[in-house]
Amino acid sequence: MNIDFKKLADKYQTPFYLYDFDHITAQYTELKESFRARKSLIAYAVKANSNLSVIKHLSNLGAGADCVSIGEVKRALKAGVPTYKIIFSGVGKSDEEIKEALILDILLINVESSAELDRVEELAKSLNKVARISIRVNPNIDPKTHPYISTGLHENKFGVDIDTAKRMYIKCKNSEHLEPTGIHCHIGSQLTQLEPIRESINIVANLVRNLKAIKIELSFMDVGGGLGIVYKDETLINTYDYAQTILDSLFGLDLTIICEPGRFIVGNSGIFVTKVLYEKINGNKRFVIVDGAMNDLIRPALYDAYHRVEVLNNNKNLSDCNLVGPVCESGDFFAKNIDLPETQSGDLITIYSAGAYGFTMSSNYNTRARVAEIAIENGNDRLIRKRESFEDLIANEIEFL
Amino acid sequence: MNIDFKKLADKYQTPFYLYDFDHITAQYTELKESFRARKSLIAYAVKANSNLSVIKHLSNLGAGADCVSIGEVKRALKAGVPTYKIIFSGVGKSDEEIKEALILDILLINVESSAELDRVEELAKSLNKVARISIRVNPNIDPKTHPYISTGLHENKFGVDIDTAKRMYIKCKNSEHLEPTGIHCHIGSQLTQLEPIRESINIVANLVRNLKAIKIELSFMDVGGGLGIVYKDETLINTYDYAQTILDSLFGLDLTIICEPGRFIVGNSGIFVTKVLYEKINGNKRFVIVDGAMNDLIRPALYDAYHRVEVLNNNKNLSDCNLVGPVCESGDFFAKNIDLPETQSGDLITIYSAGAYGFTMSSNYNTRARVAEIAIENGNDRLIRKRESFEDLIANEIEFL
Repeated sequence: MNIDFKKLADKYQTPFYLYDFDHITAQYTELKESFRARKSLIAYAVKANSNLSVIKHLSNLGAGADCVSIGEVKRALKAGVPTYKIIFSGVGKSDEEIKEALILDILLINVESSAELDRVEELAKSLNKVARISIRVNPNIDPKTHPYISTGLHENKFGVDIDTAKRMYIKCKNSEHLEPTGIHCHIGSQLTQLEPIRESINIVANLVRNLKAIKIELSFMDVGGGLGIVYKDETLINTYDYAQTILDSLFGLDLTIICEPGRFIVGNSGIFVTKVLYEKINGNKRFVIVDGAMNDLIRPALYDAYHRVEVLNNNKNLSDCNLVGPVCESGDFFAKNIDLPETQSGDLITIYSAGAYGFTMSSNYNTRARVAEIAIENGNDRLIRKRESFEDLIANEIEFL
Repeated sequence: MNIDFKKLADKYQTPFYLYDFDHITAQYTELKESFRARKSLIAYAVKANSNLSVIKHLSNLGAGADCVSIGEVKRALKAGVPTYKIIFSGVGKSDEEIKEALILDILLINVESSAELDRVEELAKSLNKVARISIRVNPNIDPKTHPYISTGLHENKFGVDIDTAKRMYIKCKNSEHLEPTGIHCHIGSQLTQLEPIRESINIVANLVRNLKAIKIELSFMDVGGGLGIVYKDETLINTYDYAQTILDSLFGLDLTIICEPGRFIVGNSGIFVTKVLYEKINGNKRFVIVDGAMNDLIRPALYDAYHRVEVLNNNKNLSDCNLVGPVCESGDFFAKNIDLPETQSGDLITIYSAGAYGFTMSSNYNTRARVAEIAIENGNDRLIRKRESFEDLIANEIEFL
């Protein structure tokens, strides 16, 4: 796409997030099409980018919403996602959240522990409701074949083991207030191999068959998310192969597939656009200082994440530098030891692959207002979230002064 | 102090931050008293905890404010800090921020690069103002004696070397719009040794004497922050020894001392209070899941920081566990491999030393509303920031839907 960043910067000021809605459409459509042999629901993982207009765009395409807080459920509803396409997941749901989810009558509550199932039952009873339950299973894959994923299992707060899951389904069957409806497993992020996916789904499908034998009939198989994107040079799984692997494993089972992509849908739709303030040299080290900072995009500081960077000027004179923000922390950087051209104050810099876990993790650290979010679609740009004002930042404090 | 956390939790709900204002008073007073032999200004580093009521409390005690954004400057003003006690620091100030600081006529702009000094001069000229300048110096300490601090110097975006500083002061002297007023150095955080402090201040004091010889007379020496607090078992510098070391180095120089403590003042005033949702066992690992999360307190995830934890029940049956929040990330934890008693849903857990870099770094990740902040003073509690509502979270988006 040919984006006039200069024009956008003049119109909206910097820094800002820009999301290409056409890319979001393409990613959604590719994945949905891969599952076309089956009934499927692509439930967008709202935590990746929870802007209401992003969710609405996906909802218009037919997407549901995978939510991890009642706040995300409310966002999905505001954006027009129908209740029957909303799932509520997460290891720690409060009583208030569970009650609200039951009253709203969303599709599924993804339960992650026995204790949680007990709470859901109790709360459903108090409301005289029946809770549709899905249980998140950790398929215990042999560590020798897949040590990385297996490490995740034993030190991981998510889900329950197969035996616990089975007992929980039986509890559901015997309860007037719990309806065993779905099953869920999520086997990791930025997946690069099909074999662990196949093994995991096989294990879970086997549980579904065992449950069927004891007259517990599930309707939904939530295969989680985990499809990656290219940040730098990652090798990814082809979505068609991904879908086929899952469909093969579910042969003979009449289940609607739910898939929960987040990063895959929005990650490479987003660009963080920032402006050079100054350059400086300390000792032998060159620093390019921009107006965006770690409070806007924390992934480099938090995960040591790589984001491709481009300086929008015609200078070809490259040299090594650190690209840093104004926040008073050594951890405030976007890239270290990177070759960038000489810059002038006011030059724009684009930071790519910033559509997922960018704005959603942003804060007001150093009393910096959160930035604007812009959508671009068919070549037309529009504001989808206003830049915060100082008054916004103190709104919940000023009355107590 | 004897705090009835149960009562506070009933009154304000969980999670919340609690700040002991009497502790803040004690810390401020101890430091101010240590410098009593000299004119001094304790300029509280607002970034540590920028709640308006916290700043106001310190302002009432006589504190100034060290700010790193125009937002922090505005907070200080709202909280009643007089302009002549406000300093504006930071490596990346935008033109708008510099202009506003000049118009507000605050005490000092702490300049961190030659390029920034040029911008300040240009902007002061355009406003027909004279900018009072302080320059942040990196005192180039021999790496063999103090490798840790010295590493900080060469890979660090902050400040300028002594020679650059000197040239910048001469530029100030020759400019109609710049007034060389102060000098600044900051030599690290959580300081444990006096010797590097002495060396650094000696180097900077030497520059002050050199400047004096060429008729550049400074009025303020900003010695930065860096006094630590006890999180676990740290050995700290005695504040009296700290002040004496600085005063010794400045012998014969008529400078007002500015000191910029943040963590030292508020760090151990703060407690993050959260509630148990459930317990679960995965494999052999016990997890205690609470209603607070990494979006509320990111220090464990971001810095692998230690915070002392206490479960407020009478159970003595300790076992190993991870203390985690509801956010869908493995990085969402408060403590790992810690012995805690068995808990019941609803038990309160206190997380200590959370007064600095706690709330200020909090976000709305997973569409979680930011928590309430409570002050306690003379045994009386009061709300100083309301818990956010769902409507707050979507306020800047909803009109674009």
